[in-house]
Amino acid sequence: MANSKFEYVKNFELPDPLLPNTWIVVRIDGRGFTKFCAKHDFQKPNDKRALDLMNAAARTVVTDLPDITIAYGVSDEYSFVFHKSCTLFDRRSSKITSTVVSLFSANFIHLWPTYFPDSPLSQPLPTFDGRAFCLPAVDNLRDYMSWRQVDCHINNLYNTIFWTLIQQGGYSNQDAEKLLAARGHPSSCEMTPDTSQGTVSSDKHEILFSKFGINYNNEPEIYKKGSVVFRNYELVEPGTHNAAEEADALAEPVQQSKSQAEKEKKKRRKACVVVEHLDIIKDDFWDRRPWLLSNKPGKTPKET
Amino acid sequence: MANSKFEYVKNFELPDPLLPNTWIVVRIDGRGFTKFCAKHDFQKPNDKRALDLMNAAARTVVTDLPDITIAYGVSDEYSFVFHKSCTLFDRRSSKITSTVVSLFSANFIHLWPTYFPDSPLSQPLPTFDGRAFCLPAVDNLRDYMSWRQVDCHINNLYNTIFWTLIQQGGYSNQDAEKLLAARGHPSSCEMTPDTSQGTVSSDKHEILFSKFGINYNNEPEIYKKGSVVFRNYELVEPGTHNAAEEADALAEPVQQSKSQAEKEKKKRRKACVVVEHLDIIKDDFWDRRPWLLSNKPGKTPKET
Amino acid sequence: MANSKFEYVKNFELPDPLLPNTWIVVRIDGRGFTKFCAKHDFQKPNDKRALDLMNAAARTVVTDLPDITIAYGVSDEYSFVFHKSCTLFDRRSSKITSTVVSLFSANFIHLWPTYFPDSPLSQPLPTFDGRAFCLPAVDNLRDYMSWRQVDCHINNLYNTIFWTLIQQGGYSNQDAEKLLAARGHPSSCEMTPDTSQGTVSSDKHEILFSKFGINYNNEPEIYKKGSVVFRNYELVEPGTHNAAEEADALAEPVQQSKSQAEKEKKKRRKACVVVEHLDIIKDDFWDRRPWLLSNKPGKTPKET
Amino acid sequence: MANSKFEYVKNFELPDPLLPNTWIVVRIDGRGFTKFCAKHDFQKPNDKRALDLMNAAARTVVTDLPDITIAYGVSDEYSFVFHKSCTLFDRRSSKITSTVVSLFSANFIHLWPTYFPDSPLSQPLPTFDGRAFCLPAVDNLRDYMSWRQVDCHINNLYNTIFWTLIQQGGYSNQDAEKLLAARGHPSSCEMTPDTSQGTVSSDKHEILFSKFGINYNNEPEIYKKGSVVFRNYELVEPGTHNAAEEADALAEPVQQSKSQAEKEKKKRRKACVVVEHLDIIKDDFWDRRPWLLSNKPGKTPKET
Repeated sequence: MANSKFEYVKNFELPDPLLPNTWIVVRIDGRGFTKFCAKHDFQKPNDKRALDLMNAAARTVVTDLPDITIAYGVSDEYSFVFHKSCTLFDRRSSKITSTVVSLFSANFIHLWPTYFPDSPLSQPLPTFDGRAFCLPAVDNLRDYMSWRQVDCHINNLYNTIFWTLIQQGGYSNQDAEKLLAARGHPSSCEMTPDTSQGTVSSDKHEILFSKFGINYNNEPEIYKKGSVVFRNYELVEPGTHNAAEEADALAEPVQQSKSQAEKEKKKRRKACVVVEHLDIIKDDFWDRRPWLLSNKPGKTPKET
Repeated sequence: MANSKFEYVKNFELPDPLLPNTWIVVRIDGRGFTKFCAKHDFQKPNDKRALDLMNAAARTVVTDLPDITIAYGVSDEYSFVFHKSCTLFDRRSSKITSTVVSLFSANFIHLWPTYFPDSPLSQPLPTFDGRAFCLPAVDNLRDYMSWRQVDCHINNLYNTIFWTLIQQGGYSNQDAEKLLAARGHPSSCEMTPDTSQGTVSSDKHEILFSKFGINYNNEPEIYKKGSVVFRNYELVEPGTHNAAEEADALAEPVQQSKSQAEKEKKKRRKACVVVEHLDIIKDDFWDRRPWLLSNKPGKTPKET
Repeated sequence: MANSKFEYVKNFELPDPLLPNTWIVVRIDGRGFTKFCAKHDFQKPNDKRALDLMNAAARTVVTDLPDITIAYGVSDEYSFVFHKSCTLFDRRSSKITSTVVSLFSANFIHLWPTYFPDSPLSQPLPTFDGRAFCLPAVDNLRDYMSWRQVDCHINNLYNTIFWTLIQQGGYSNQDAEKLLAARGHPSSCEMTPDTSQGTVSSDKHEILFSKFGINYNNEPEIYKKGSVVFRNYELVEPGTHNAAEEADALAEPVQQSKSQAEKEKKKRRKACVVVEHLDIIKDDFWDRRPWLLSNKPGKTPKET
Repeated sequence: MANSKFEYVKNFELPDPLLPNTWIVVRIDGRGFTKFCAKHDFQKPNDKRALDLMNAAARTVVTDLPDITIAYGVSDEYSFVFHKSCTLFDRRSSKITSTVVSLFSANFIHLWPTYFPDSPLSQPLPTFDGRAFCLPAVDNLRDYMSWRQVDCHINNLYNTIFWTLIQQGGYSNQDAEKLLAARGHPSSCEMTPDTSQGTVSSDKHEILFSKFGINYNNEPEIYKKGSVVFRNYELVEPGTHNAAEEADALAEPVQQSKSQAEKEKKKRRKACVVVEHLDIIKDDFWDRRPWLLSNKPGKTPKET
């Protein structure tokens, strides 16, 4: 595009590469979704259609960008993880972020009528902002994913009881808030293995059960766990892999022959991108799916 | 969202503020539009429906974000300019870029059926990437805008003759390319006032006229000039303002009383966002619309 | 340095260019100077030898780096301003910052024995940290310089009376602090033309005069104004130049012939780098020295 | 320092934190050392006094900044490695870089007379520039250190024969260059275990031995290996530690009790900072000194 004496302005566009050999996370968030949810009468505390739409949009993003190894969504946010060996767009931050945001937004709008056939969109349209950041170690990545899933749990438990108090208990918003405030916010680690029986959390379970006969554990997994999106291959035997250790052992992109790279690319394209609602905090999820951290496609699952 | 021992990962999200007192430009570009245009049979060299759709999407972005003072579009790219005093999202680069990209993408998809009622979208959807950068002086901003408009002109002249040779002259793609290559690419400054009669450019005009009876000057302005989007107020008298000088005189956001700020905000919201096809290289465009550089809303145009 | 399979690590060194067409300021600060001053019995409130040493070191930095247009020092800090057209080290931030810091530190140590012949240095040596930042407009630069000079004034007035109370009034540190706290910190704009008679400031003047017979206005300029370092040429007539406006008019580095650039370089090398103690807040300083903002060397002063 | 209407300029100083949980390397390089070496008649190919001075300066930097875990120097460059858990200056890039550069420069000047008593410094003084960058994994750090040491070896072998040809063989600079060019530059991996007998390298050894009776292996270690600077504790038994693996297992700074942290700090201060000339490419160096990667002080060596 060399064209003129004006061209020097190109130099104002500064480089923004992300640090090599780090996991890139792009997290997107709905802009002004409180109003948007009200406009379209989203069900409380969770609107199944809206979550299905979010997941369908995320699935398209993961399918479109094979460098994404896993994505996790809760409420109106989604985190997309690019493998640390990724060289997409020379790891330019704004290019990666904007591409994810654009793909997600476009699909959200495009798929809307499928999930909300009776509630056509109007201005202002639903949109998403995004940011990219780098996580240097597998442990940081695992902790990030756990952070989001703990958040999902805490908020869902709170929202479930809050809306039950209102919808079934006849509480006003304020009274429900007051009741819950008195009992404190949930302790920080309640979802992690060793502290899952935290008092405050069990207190909420108790209210739900004793007042309304609701067993929180029977609530749908999609609400309690959020949604994980990834390419699916055959699970490996438990205990045969330490996925985190293997991943950290890769200091730089493995030098592959072209044919080998091509072969893996094909495999990745053929793989089915699935949406699941699993515990991603425990090791098991990662150890049985070593391809998530190793970036080496697994075996195609046998058809049944 | 304080919730757990995992929360430390928040610290990996590093700050990315853009330099204060500089013009922020977010330029977005269509991803893989060559294939996309082919899939939907876009007309060559310009598809009026596609340009109208781009402009409609851009118009919504400008309407939605009052901090945008002007936008300029050509082909599958659009540049959005935020006034240098803008404090939107604390000037965080990824937040600003992703919001523009999301708004544009969402509207492009949403408005598609209006402009292409007979060519429904399918995967992969049209998407856009984006980047933000800073321009410190009004002259840099003017030069950036000029750069894009010169580019529009050069490409459109080339494409016009290229496709005329093929569509009306029966040339093959290769023969048309060869013919044009022999005559060289257009000189760099041909669109600027003093050199507009450059030989190479006039040569192309000549081919169009002598061979096909086409006077390039009569081609539609939207193709020759691209599209400018801005809030419209009453034009000021020519020669009464030196917009660039006034803008550079503002070293920091003017301290306004709240009521004054509120008043200006209202005026901005009421203003009509227009799409025009004007010369934005010459001073006249800017001097008669001082609000573009000053960020002070002008007079609402009298209705006629 | 191509040498091995290890070489890929070069890619971890990310680019850090500073925005073009902006004034680059590198400000350095003494590390742990409170202890250092005590160790070498610096005189209070100002140690003339230490300030002369700071200025001598700064003078060498300015002489060594012709891209520096002006520098300003107060206490143990110094700000070095590179002209906005500067392309030194391709405007790489860390390269520019570290070079200034290294030059200053090296000269500070090297010149120490000249200014403190009886107080040899010992570990830990005096050192300085630094940072670079960009100022887009001349007004921002002028405001930055004014900010530092106002700071100099406020601190010096406070310190002068504080140490006079102790050294001549027999106050304890605590009592002196208490007395001054009761009268409040100086008003913010007292050094600027129109508000220089602020109550709080004049109150301090009054204490100095009535209690100790000291007229603050007669204190040495180097303490009241700090130190300005620049290349010296012949002053121009007052009122013939608006230096700020001229500087802002330059959107990009002027295209010079090589011989012209060489000529200017020579002139700059021949110019005398001076250390002065002048008011740099008022326009006069800048308008009579247009070369500071224009980067065009002035006339060599006639010898007398 | 709140003081005035000018204070808004503080906002132009943008944050520059380095990514957490990554190894920070600050590499410094001599500016214009070719000229500087000539001025002070540095011996060729290596000047022992100059290297000792570099090492003494580096030793002071490591002593002064306990966050530095190891440093490596060759020729006029030195790399300082901060442990990935380091929080010095909130990991601000320019603050860390400038502090290292200032400390090194100050000590280089201060110690000069000790190493060059007969060659006093004059303007321009020797100075150093610097830059900081992040390495995410221990493997990247090890590869970086290896890269520098391989570079040391390659250059020293070349320089040794080059200067022997001139000093003992009576070659002109050009003839020596030509002879060496004909035999090619050394292969890339010659210093790594499995390829150390590369032809090109052994060819140089041969010239040295057959023509001049010099056995390169008998050259001083400081020239062949460069210099490593670190805190010294008791070596652990070979094979008892996998230092790299242990280090990667730390995803974030270990939560220590204050008293524990204080205790480690004391140990670090008491530790002796040594300068050695060892192979840092092989695992052995790291495995026997686990404190370098773990950041946990080892046992104080028994006095002998």
